[in-house]
Amino acid sequence: MRARLLAADFPTVTLDTSVAEAARLLAEQDLPGLIVVDEQGLPLSVLSGTQVLWLAVPGYCRDDPALARVVDEPHADQFLRSLAGRTVREALPRESRELPVTDPDATVLELAALMARTRSPLVAVVEGGRLIGAVTLQALMDWAVSA
Amino acid sequence: MRARLLAADFPTVTLDTSVAEAARLLAEQDLPGLIVVDEQGLPLSVLSGTQVLWLAVPGYCRDDPALARVVDEPHADQFLRSLAGRTVREALPRESRELPVTDPDATVLELAALMARTRSPLVAVVEGGRLIGAVTLQALMDWAVSA
Repeated sequence: MRARLLAADFPTVTLDTSVAEAARLLAEQDLPGLIVVDEQGLPLSVLSGTQVLWLAVPGYCRDDPALARVVDEPHADQFLRSLAGRTVREALPRESRELPVTDPDATVLELAALMARTRSPLVAVVEGGRLIGAVTLQALMDWAVSA
Repeated sequence: MRARLLAADFPTVTLDTSVAEAARLLAEQDLPGLIVVDEQGLPLSVLSGTQVLWLAVPGYCRDDPALARVVDEPHADQFLRSLAGRTVREALPRESRELPVTDPDATVLELAALMARTRSPLVAVVEGGRLIGAVTLQALMDWAVSA
């Protein structure tokens, strides 16, 4: 089995997508993460669900559990609203890191190793300068346990 | 909204569960991760899906993409089988790290910050020395985008 056959269409966002919209897409389509593409449609970044949350949570609350605790319930409930017009571009982490992107010939072992190494439940599959889809951890596991 | 109301029953594994069985549970029930409990049923660890993959992929393939690539397709397809009788106890990472475990009064902001910080799409909720359930990233996002 190769990535080509496990890959499925996957929604993408751009740097100009709002973080609120990205969060909504993730929630409504039950996605394990999001693929951020450039003007050519190629992956600039692949964000896991927890990285999308990272964009959506104020820094002081991420770093200090005691500070997150003092925010009262009505304000805590609205945490996604506080993002207002913030875009993925503004929120994207700056560190360079290995992206979970591979080619269509990757085996299930390569996909599994890439997901484990990058901690991403989602791998983008690129062929000839074009995003052809994504393999999710669920699709990979479903296939691997029945192999 | 508080963790108590967002928490749902969640399957658990023990240190003696085989890694193959843990992988099967994750795949068949479409889980974002697994909760490892001790004899008293309290969380010892919370593993994201990519951490379960980490347990299931041979170390040399995780660390070196070139080595994963040389494994031929028939062998790659069977990577989960190579685990045979390995248990979660043998495969569990040894490093101590913050666990995604909270109490029933945690707000959605605290849950989101905890998921972002620990990179876990799953938080175990413990009350009075008892695991009362888990909040998934999907349940949290579903609630937060409609708040």
